Amino acid sequence: MDMHKLTRQLHVKNDSKIVMLVADGLGGLPQQPGGLTELETAKTPNLDALAKQGICGSSIPVKPGISPGSGPGHLGLFGYDPLAYLIGRGALEATGIGFQLEEGDVAIRCNFCTLDAAGNITDRRAGRIPTEQSAPLAIKLRQVSIPGVEVFVEPVKEHRFVVVLRGKGLGGNVADTDPQATGVPPLAPRATNPDSKKTAEVAAEFVKQARELLADQPQANCCTLRGVSPKPNPPSYEEVYGLRAAAIAVYPMYKGLAQLVGMEIVGTAQTLDEQMAVLEENWDKYDFFFIHFKYTDSTGEDGNFDAKVKRTEEVDACVPRIMALKPDVFICTGDHSTPAMLASHSWHPVPTLLVAKNCRTDGCESFGERQCLQGGLGQFEAKYLMPLALANAGRLAKFGA
Amino acid sequence: MDMHKLTRQLHVKNDSKIVMLVADGLGGLPQQPGGLTELETAKTPNLDALAKQGICGSSIPVKPGISPGSGPGHLGLFGYDPLAYLIGRGALEATGIGFQLEEGDVAIRCNFCTLDAAGNITDRRAGRIPTEQSAPLAIKLRQVSIPGVEVFVEPVKEHRFVVVLRGKGLGGNVADTDPQATGVPPLAPRATNPDSKKTAEVAAEFVKQARELLADQPQANCCTLRGVSPKPNPPSYEEVYGLRAAAIAVYPMYKGLAQLVGMEIVGTAQTLDEQMAVLEENWDKYDFFFIHFKYTDSTGEDGNFDAKVKRTEEVDACVPRIMALKPDVFICTGDHSTPAMLASHSWHPVPTLLVAKNCRTDGCESFGERQCLQGGLGQFEAKYLMPLALANAGRLAKFGA
Repeated sequence: MDMHKLTRQLHVKNDSKIVMLVADGLGGLPQQPGGLTELETAKTPNLDALAKQGICGSSIPVKPGISPGSGPGHLGLFGYDPLAYLIGRGALEATGIGFQLEEGDVAIRCNFCTLDAAGNITDRRAGRIPTEQSAPLAIKLRQVSIPGVEVFVEPVKEHRFVVVLRGKGLGGNVADTDPQATGVPPLAPRATNPDSKKTAEVAAEFVKQARELLADQPQANCCTLRGVSPKPNPPSYEEVYGLRAAAIAVYPMYKGLAQLVGMEIVGTAQTLDEQMAVLEENWDKYDFFFIHFKYTDSTGEDGNFDAKVKRTEEVDACVPRIMALKPDVFICTGDHSTPAMLASHSWHPVPTLLVAKNCRTDGCESFGERQCLQGGLGQFEAKYLMPLALANAGRLAKFGA
Repeated sequence: MDMHKLTRQLHVKNDSKIVMLVADGLGGLPQQPGGLTELETAKTPNLDALAKQGICGSSIPVKPGISPGSGPGHLGLFGYDPLAYLIGRGALEATGIGFQLEEGDVAIRCNFCTLDAAGNITDRRAGRIPTEQSAPLAIKLRQVSIPGVEVFVEPVKEHRFVVVLRGKGLGGNVADTDPQATGVPPLAPRATNPDSKKTAEVAAEFVKQARELLADQPQANCCTLRGVSPKPNPPSYEEVYGLRAAAIAVYPMYKGLAQLVGMEIVGTAQTLDEQMAVLEENWDKYDFFFIHFKYTDSTGEDGNFDAKVKRTEEVDACVPRIMALKPDVFICTGDHSTPAMLASHSWHPVPTLLVAKNCRTDGCESFGERQCLQGGLGQFEAKYLMPLALANAGRLAKFGA
């Protein structure tokens, strides 16, 4: 069920404000069965008070058992079915480094690799060449010139870089050229549907010229292409919800994901405090604010339980500044769980809190995984959170007479 | 949503072991409102201890309000959408008596009936002729000979038998020939799509020859055909989950259902104790074990509350032998509820327990219908249980970057 069929039809405008505070990877696991999770361990007096006042639940990012990456995790929170709106790996990589894809662009993840004299791959990652050496090489590849196509090359990290092709008639369906083996040459770019024939030709020309430009390199003397993908094209927040939406994020990936759904990036904040200042400054200009906090995820990914607890407490500490603005709807959630015990994204449902005047309070006494199981939102797929936010903001009319 | 689209793409292999213990018809009802169900009444110290350690929930076999048969009940538990994978009645009947259908087979449920001299039906079930008399007649029908088609005839019970047609170009869409009335002749087999024209002709020839072979019978002198259906063709466990799966079941129906999804039938156990021995013997050979216990359902069907309680305690008693093998994921559930108070399958959600290292324990203190309502798995459609099992076994990679 595409909820946008309903929200497009039913959304109405008013002066309400909605704030969605996303603590990336918020959900966790106890250090031993029966113990407390990171969130349950953290001292979160502000969120606990709001849990009493609001309604809680457990958000399933995609489907039961599925651990999402950042792309599907955020699309779900933004109300876009993450199984219907797929973001190709090339497009996500470009988004993640802050490259603004335009309609019709094709993005490609590239790896520097090492070829021997016979043209066979001896190292698929060019010896994991350090970024200081690889970045100038990526920039050198901007010299590639292909008639009728703009070619953008952006360094990423170590052996990785991104290429974006911009031009008419470029389809996004080209197979990976990494043969996943050494001792053989890279594969030729091959269109997997007829619309992408030109893209395959352009990609082949790119590799040919890149090889010439890199001929004198001992390690990074060629490259392979992976995750060729077009700019994803989800409808905008304005279109499906009637919301002027702002994103207050620090990392390029989350700015990029927000831009994909038509949010405007506001401010240049680097800390949560600065993000609060940006929120205050822009309060009158938007209806919806997405605030992204990365460090609950990165500490989880590091497997650092205590650090994640501390980062969770930082999230809690910023809440009074948000509530002082009197949002009509305040949401605190995560795009997925990142339990420190697993040091990775996981499938576990994410504690979620929604506070609004008419939210129908449940019996939750604090904000944590087990309390949320008793909450009034129950267990729900993340894509339903935006319709709930709109409803609580008085922004959805009645369906049917 | 077909979860296999995701699991096919995301499954990875490792050394983990998953055990799914299915107590058929496990869910129940109290004898009076507010009382205890069969499971809540049963002394189940082992499952109660695991409920504290694991995560509980309520499985909805198909959709809310829908009481499933054994086919959809098990397909759901196996992770196959029971609304997408339909098993025709002929195919289920053949499966239920242990007949191994091959690709292209068409299975038919048949009833002996009684015709008068004018060829009109006087008894649609041939006076519910006893099995001792009907089985030899079914075997006599093996004399039917149709060029180019192999015909298998298997006795079932009383007036019922199964016919399987094996040959080229046999479609599975032929209408029932039982007119659902007496005083009229059986209907001629009629193809309901063009691919099944040959099947209808073969079926007509079968009935013609059967009538000749049965001409001297006072009661069972003809037959009607119902539930004509092809072999269902779900993808295998290996294909959709990457699992080598074993089924340890006593009854042909459950062996047959397991075989349909590519499980191997191991052992010839007749008791739960023997099933445990088979599990132990085969522990190293498979990744996934489906253990089926029938008697929680049959005592429920008999309306015998106390007997179902006792059978539930037998299930509990076998659990330590399973846990001694240290499965990475242990699941105990049922394919549907069979409350003794209803003496039939019902729509009520089924208590479900999953134990794994990183399952995120909830607050459940024992294994029963009401405790499960507080559980961390919430209420979920049975088809999500396998993705959850795979996730907990570390067998699903991240979705999206």
